Amino acid sequence: MNAELRIIPLGGLGEIGKNMMLIETPSDALIVDAGLMFPENDMLGIDYIIPDYRSVLDRKDHVRGIIVTHGHEDHTGAIRHVAEAFDAPIFATPLTRGLLEVKLGRAGLAGRAHLQTVKAGGEISLGPFRIEFFHVCHSIPDGVGLGITTPAGLIVHSGDFKFDHTPVDGWPTDYAKLAEFSGRGVLALLSDSTNADQAGWTPSERVVDGAFEEVFRAAPGRILIGTFASLISRIQQAANAAYRHNRKMALVGTSMVENARMAQKLGYLDIPDGLMVSIEEALRLPSAKVVLMTTGTQGEPSSILGRLASGRNRQFELEQDDTVIFSSHPIPGNEELVHRTINRLFQRGAHVIYDPIAPVHVSGHASAEEMKLLIHLVRPKHVIPIHGELRHLKQHGAIARDLGIPAENVAVVENGTQIEFADGRMTLADRVPGNYVFVDGTGVGDIGPSVMRERELLARDGFVSVQLRVRASNGALTEKPEIISKGFVYVRESGELLAGAEQTIREAVARGGSGELGTRVENALSEYFYSETKRRPMVFVSVSAI
Amino acid sequence: MNAELRIIPLGGLGEIGKNMMLIETPSDALIVDAGLMFPENDMLGIDYIIPDYRSVLDRKDHVRGIIVTHGHEDHTGAIRHVAEAFDAPIFATPLTRGLLEVKLGRAGLAGRAHLQTVKAGGEISLGPFRIEFFHVCHSIPDGVGLGITTPAGLIVHSGDFKFDHTPVDGWPTDYAKLAEFSGRGVLALLSDSTNADQAGWTPSERVVDGAFEEVFRAAPGRILIGTFASLISRIQQAANAAYRHNRKMALVGTSMVENARMAQKLGYLDIPDGLMVSIEEALRLPSAKVVLMTTGTQGEPSSILGRLASGRNRQFELEQDDTVIFSSHPIPGNEELVHRTINRLFQRGAHVIYDPIAPVHVSGHASAEEMKLLIHLVRPKHVIPIHGELRHLKQHGAIARDLGIPAENVAVVENGTQIEFADGRMTLADRVPGNYVFVDGTGVGDIGPSVMRERELLARDGFVSVQLRVRASNGALTEKPEIISKGFVYVRESGELLAGAEQTIREAVARGGSGELGTRVENALSEYFYSETKRRPMVFVSVSAI
Repeated sequence: MNAELRIIPLGGLGEIGKNMMLIETPSDALIVDAGLMFPENDMLGIDYIIPDYRSVLDRKDHVRGIIVTHGHEDHTGAIRHVAEAFDAPIFATPLTRGLLEVKLGRAGLAGRAHLQTVKAGGEISLGPFRIEFFHVCHSIPDGVGLGITTPAGLIVHSGDFKFDHTPVDGWPTDYAKLAEFSGRGVLALLSDSTNADQAGWTPSERVVDGAFEEVFRAAPGRILIGTFASLISRIQQAANAAYRHNRKMALVGTSMVENARMAQKLGYLDIPDGLMVSIEEALRLPSAKVVLMTTGTQGEPSSILGRLASGRNRQFELEQDDTVIFSSHPIPGNEELVHRTINRLFQRGAHVIYDPIAPVHVSGHASAEEMKLLIHLVRPKHVIPIHGELRHLKQHGAIARDLGIPAENVAVVENGTQIEFADGRMTLADRVPGNYVFVDGTGVGDIGPSVMRERELLARDGFVSVQLRVRASNGALTEKPEIISKGFVYVRESGELLAGAEQTIREAVARGGSGELGTRVENALSEYFYSETKRRPMVFVSVSAI
Repeated sequence: MNAELRIIPLGGLGEIGKNMMLIETPSDALIVDAGLMFPENDMLGIDYIIPDYRSVLDRKDHVRGIIVTHGHEDHTGAIRHVAEAFDAPIFATPLTRGLLEVKLGRAGLAGRAHLQTVKAGGEISLGPFRIEFFHVCHSIPDGVGLGITTPAGLIVHSGDFKFDHTPVDGWPTDYAKLAEFSGRGVLALLSDSTNADQAGWTPSERVVDGAFEEVFRAAPGRILIGTFASLISRIQQAANAAYRHNRKMALVGTSMVENARMAQKLGYLDIPDGLMVSIEEALRLPSAKVVLMTTGTQGEPSSILGRLASGRNRQFELEQDDTVIFSSHPIPGNEELVHRTINRLFQRGAHVIYDPIAPVHVSGHASAEEMKLLIHLVRPKHVIPIHGELRHLKQHGAIARDLGIPAENVAVVENGTQIEFADGRMTLADRVPGNYVFVDGTGVGDIGPSVMRERELLARDGFVSVQLRVRASNGALTEKPEIISKGFVYVRESGELLAGAEQTIREAVARGGSGELGTRVENALSEYFYSETKRRPMVFVSVSAI
C-alpha cells in the first residue's frame, strides 16, 4: 500500500449498501459498522445478507477496533460475523452497546466479544487513529458521527443523521463540533445519502406528536401502535401520548420488550411510573384505556400485526373499534406486504392510520437541504457519499458538486472500491473482489447463483421427477413409471396430463435411439409439458436397470 | 332477485381491485371492464390474475354488453377470457377499441369478438339500460365514464379519472355532463379510489412538459424515455419535446410500436412529419439528435430497459452520455425491481432521471380534492368507492362521509359483495363466492393454494429426492442410494453433508421399525438436514424393491 490512508466501503455488488467500512493505513485499520441487508424479493429463501469482508481478512491483525455508530440492524446486524472474523474490541455509545449485547447474547457470543463504551463528545485513540464521537439525531437515540484524525488528515463520518431541531430526546446534532472540525480542515466527509433524492428538509420527530395527539383524541377503543423494535424515541412518544390521554401502555413482542428494557435501564426512555403494564393486564382493562405497542409494520406474516391481520394471533384478537397506527414506512421491497397487511386490518374492521393518511412517521435521514448544510458546516476537501443505493450516492454526489466541490474531489463509488489518500489527494483504485454473502440457516456464503437459479426455476413451475425401472437386457420398462410432481400442477385434477406424460415416457423408451435413456425421456417430457401447459417444470428422470 | 338493480364488483379476495363489474336487473345485465391484476411477489410463477366471474356465469344469457371504459391492462387485460365466457358485444371508444383489437388479435380472437365503437358524448341502449358516455381525463386518451340509466335510477361510473385542466390532448373531463346528471338526480356514484390517500389535487400532465424541457436542454447525448406502452399522451409529450429540440424519435418494443400506430391511425397522436424514424435509423444518427422511447419502466429484466441495465440488449447498448428518463411510477410491488434497474443504469454510466429527482411522471388518478369535487358535481344519493385496494376504498368512503353523505349511503365493500337497490334504497347482500383466478401458462384457475404452497417451500429451501433399491426378501439396500438435490445446497461443495445423508439413510433402512420404509427415511433425512443446516428442503424417497 503506497497511500497514507485507504477507505473501503465493503459489501456486495455495490448497488445497495450494507454498511461496513474499512479505514486503514499501511499498518493499522479500523472497521466502522457491521450491518446486514434484508434479502430482496427474488433472493428466495435467504435469511439475510452480510458484507463481503473476505478480501480484507488478510489484514485482520491490523484491525484495532470495530466502531458501531448506532443500534440499527443495517449497522449492527452482521456484528456476530464481524466480531468473530476480526476479533477486535467493539466501541459503541451506551445504548448502542446495550443493543449489541442483546444481539451478541442471542448469538451465544455474550462473553466472547470485547465491548467498550464510548460517549458522544468523548474520544479514543486506536493505533494511529484518534476518533472523536459527536452526537447526531437519527431515528434511534445515542447515534454518533465520527471525526477520525488519521496520518493523512481528518475524516468526518456522518453516521446516519438528520438535523432535527426538536428531537424527542431534546438532544440536537452537535453543530459546534462539526464547525470545529471545519476549522481544523477536513480531508474528507463521508455522509449519509439515504434520502438524497428527497428535496427540502426532513420533518422533525415532533410532527409525530401532533399526529399521535389527533389519533388519540378520536380513537374510540384500543390503540395499537406498530413500529420498529429499535425506534426507542417512538416508544417514548407513544408513552407520552398514552400518559396525556390517561391510557396504560403495554409492549408486545420480545425484541421490543428487550430493547425498551435496555433503553430504560440506561436512561434513554423516561416512562412515568405506573404507565407500563404487562400485556395480560392491558387485555383486562377497558379498551379505551389501552395502548399496545408492537412490531410487525413491515408486513411480516409471523409478526403480531401480521397475525392480527390474518386472524391467527393467539393471545388476543383485533376488535372492531381498534385503531392501528403504522408508525413506520415500508422498507423498500416490503411495500406490497405492508399494504396487504393494512388492507387485511381494515377488512377486520380496524381503523388503520398510516402515512400519508396522517404523518405518524418521519424519516430518520437527512434530506437534500440537510446534506447541503452538513457540507457547508464541515467544508471538506473531498466528499464521499455513503449509505444508500447507488442512485442515492449519485444524487448526493450531484449535490456536492452543486455546492462547489470539484468533481474530481467527489467519490461516488460502489462497495469494494478502494479510495486512497496521499499528499492530500484522493485517488480511486481497483475494486476488491466481493459479492452478496447470503446467510441461509447456518450456511454463510455457501449459497451462490446456481442454487438461487434452481430455487427460481422451482418457484416458477415446480418439478416433475420420474423413476423408471427397465430390464437391463432389452431396455424395456418392467413396471409403470413412478411420477412425482410438486409446484407444477394440481395433481388430483391432472389425471389426463399425467396419463399423457406416461404415454410420452413409454414412447421415448420404446423409440430407443442414441444417447442416454434418462436424458431422452427428460427431453421428451419437458417438451410434452410445455406444449400442454406452457409451463417449464424442472424434469428429472432416474433409471434403474435390473 | 327481489331488488330492482344489483351491482357486483367481481374479483378475488377483494383486497386489491381487478376491475370488472356486473350491473344487473332481474332479466338483464351489463359488464363494465375486464381487467387483470399482476401477481404479487409471493404469487410464484403466476402470469396474471383475472376476475372471478364464475358465480355469475349462470346469468350469462342476460348480459347485453361488455363496456370497456379505457385501454389500460387493469381494465382490458382479461378481455379474452371475459369475451369468451360471456359472448356479448363489446363497446368501447375508438382508441380503446383499437387497443382491444390488438389484444384480441394476439389471443387469436380477432374475428370472434363483436366490437362496437361508441364515442364520448354519445349513448347506447342495451335492454333496459341507457348508457351515456362522458369524457374523463386519465393517463390514456379517450377514457370515458358512464351515466347508466337503469330501472332503479341513474348510476354514474367515473371510470379511471382525474380533473386535469391542461391535459396533453386539450380535452378536459366533461364537467357539464356531470352537472347535468346531477340535475336529473343520481342514485349512486361509483368512483375511482386509487389515490384516495393522496391529499390535494393530482398535478396536470402539463408539468411533465416542463420536466422534459429541462432534461432535454441539459442532455449531452441520447435521451431514452421509458414509459408504459399504453401511455399515448406521454408519447405525444416526448414527440413534442423532440421536435422542439430538433431530435428524431424512435419507438422501441412491439407493444409500444403497435399502440402508437393504432393511436396515430385513429388521430390520437399528432406526430410532425419526419420526426419518427426507425430504431435502425436512430442508431445511425449522432447521439445528440436522438430520442428513443421504450417500455420496461417496471424493472422487468426481459424488457429493453432491463436488458440495457444488465448489458444484455442485442440491438444497441447503453452509452456513457445517455440520459434515461423513467416517465412512470413503480406499480405497487415493483419498487425493488425498478430501483435495481435504476441503480444498474447509473452503474453503466447513464444519467437517470426519475420522480422525485424531477416530475417526469404524474398520476392519472384523482387525489382527494378531486374526489370531493366529483361528489359535489354529481350530488349522488349513494357513493360506492371502486378501483383501488381496500385501504383506498375505506379512505374514499371517509371522504364521502366528510362531505355529508350519510354513512348508510356509503358502500365500502370488497369484491363479490352484492349491492342492491330497491325503492331508492341501497342494501348490501352476501358476497358471492370468489377467489383469485391465477393464469399460469395455458392454465386458468387450475393453480390453487396447495400448488402455491409447494412452490413456496421449493423456493425457500429446494428439495432432495432419493431413490432406494432394496431387496424384497430382507429389505436391505442393493445399491448406493441415488440422491438428487436442487435449490438446497451447492452440491459440489456439500460432499460431507451428502455423505452424512447417505449414512442417515443407511441407518434408517437398517433400523427397521414400524411404518413404511419410504416415510421412515424421509423423516430421518428431514431431521438430519435441519439439524445440519437449519433449512427444510422438501424430501422425497422412492423405494423400489426387487
